[in-house]
Amino acid sequence: MAKKDLGAKLGMYPMPTTLVGALVGGKPNYATIAHVGIMDLGHISLGMHKSHLTNSGIKENKAFSVNLPSEDMVEVTDHCGLVSGKKEDKSKLFRTFYGKLKKAPMIEECPLNMECSLARVVDFPAHDIFIGKVEATYVDEEALSDGVPDFGKLRPILFSMTGMEGPSYWKLGERFATAWSVGKGFKPGKARK
Amino acid sequence: MAKKDLGAKLGMYPMPTTLVGALVGGKPNYATIAHVGIMDLGHISLGMHKSHLTNSGIKENKAFSVNLPSEDMVEVTDHCGLVSGKKEDKSKLFRTFYGKLKKAPMIEECPLNMECSLARVVDFPAHDIFIGKVEATYVDEEALSDGVPDFGKLRPILFSMTGMEGPSYWKLGERFATAWSVGKGFKPGKARK
Repeated sequence: MAKKDLGAKLGMYPMPTTLVGALVGGKPNYATIAHVGIMDLGHISLGMHKSHLTNSGIKENKAFSVNLPSEDMVEVTDHCGLVSGKKEDKSKLFRTFYGKLKKAPMIEECPLNMECSLARVVDFPAHDIFIGKVEATYVDEEALSDGVPDFGKLRPILFSMTGMEGPSYWKLGERFATAWSVGKGFKPGKARK
Repeated sequence: MAKKDLGAKLGMYPMPTTLVGALVGGKPNYATIAHVGIMDLGHISLGMHKSHLTNSGIKENKAFSVNLPSEDMVEVTDHCGLVSGKKEDKSKLFRTFYGKLKKAPMIEECPLNMECSLARVVDFPAHDIFIGKVEATYVDEEALSDGVPDFGKLRPILFSMTGMEGPSYWKLGERFATAWSVGKGFKPGKARK
């Protein structure tokens, strides 16, 4: 297989697109963030450019939310990434609800919401990396199967930065294997079918 | 919409499944890691339990690789997560190649490979969070469209931990919108179709 060296290029995609909520000046604001991550079983990360208005609210309140929009919310999700809270009152775009932290505004329309306390900040030149401890998770009952979140019903919006057609949103496809199981039948010598 | 409070539950899925490569005792070892993240445009993160053999190799060499397996590699990918390098010589599973860092073994069979230098380590109780600076990215020519990586051709393996059927691998679905564009037509009052 011939490999092409593309130089230093971010290839860790696709990533789930999220709407991050925080109180700014006492009012909910929402930013579209797809540069996210998982640290360990209780902590997630957000790579947020320092120009975002939301960053100040996260630092002030030590609380924020991470909301997963579904495919049918792609227009408003993209809109939240195109327009700054400095120019538009984004609290009007959604129905906001609060959980036990009281200071992490969450989006009713998003089928999955994680309420987070700020655990750490890792400083990068142009970005604040906010590491949140997940304190509670709320899911639409119609996105559950047997009481647990079903990504086939949640229909997340997956994001890739690179690609022929530029930054793109993708749908989730089908579930095709059970993790920590399908590899039990593996025999060396068939790395790739 | 009725919401159910599930307690503190990791919901930031699906995530791309990766094979992380490092030299351990001078020999390539590979670990399956899907708790990954993006920090900024040049840095990615790996949340790796301290029990992994690969961690010592990353710390020693300050270099590692992040390889994206394709759907047809799901068996060997899962196998690498089930069996420790302490018990099996995983260098025999793949054809290994090296780039400019010389100390980051990469997997020929994976269609996308990122060669990383270790930029920072963030310490969690049971996990090392390795933050890598992407130094070079190599992509199979047949996974490119117009010279850039095409995720529709790369066919990454997406992972979710939660779900009715337990930890699962999912396929990527179709590209359905252009990011930083589709929201331009958004009019308030239609958050969800």
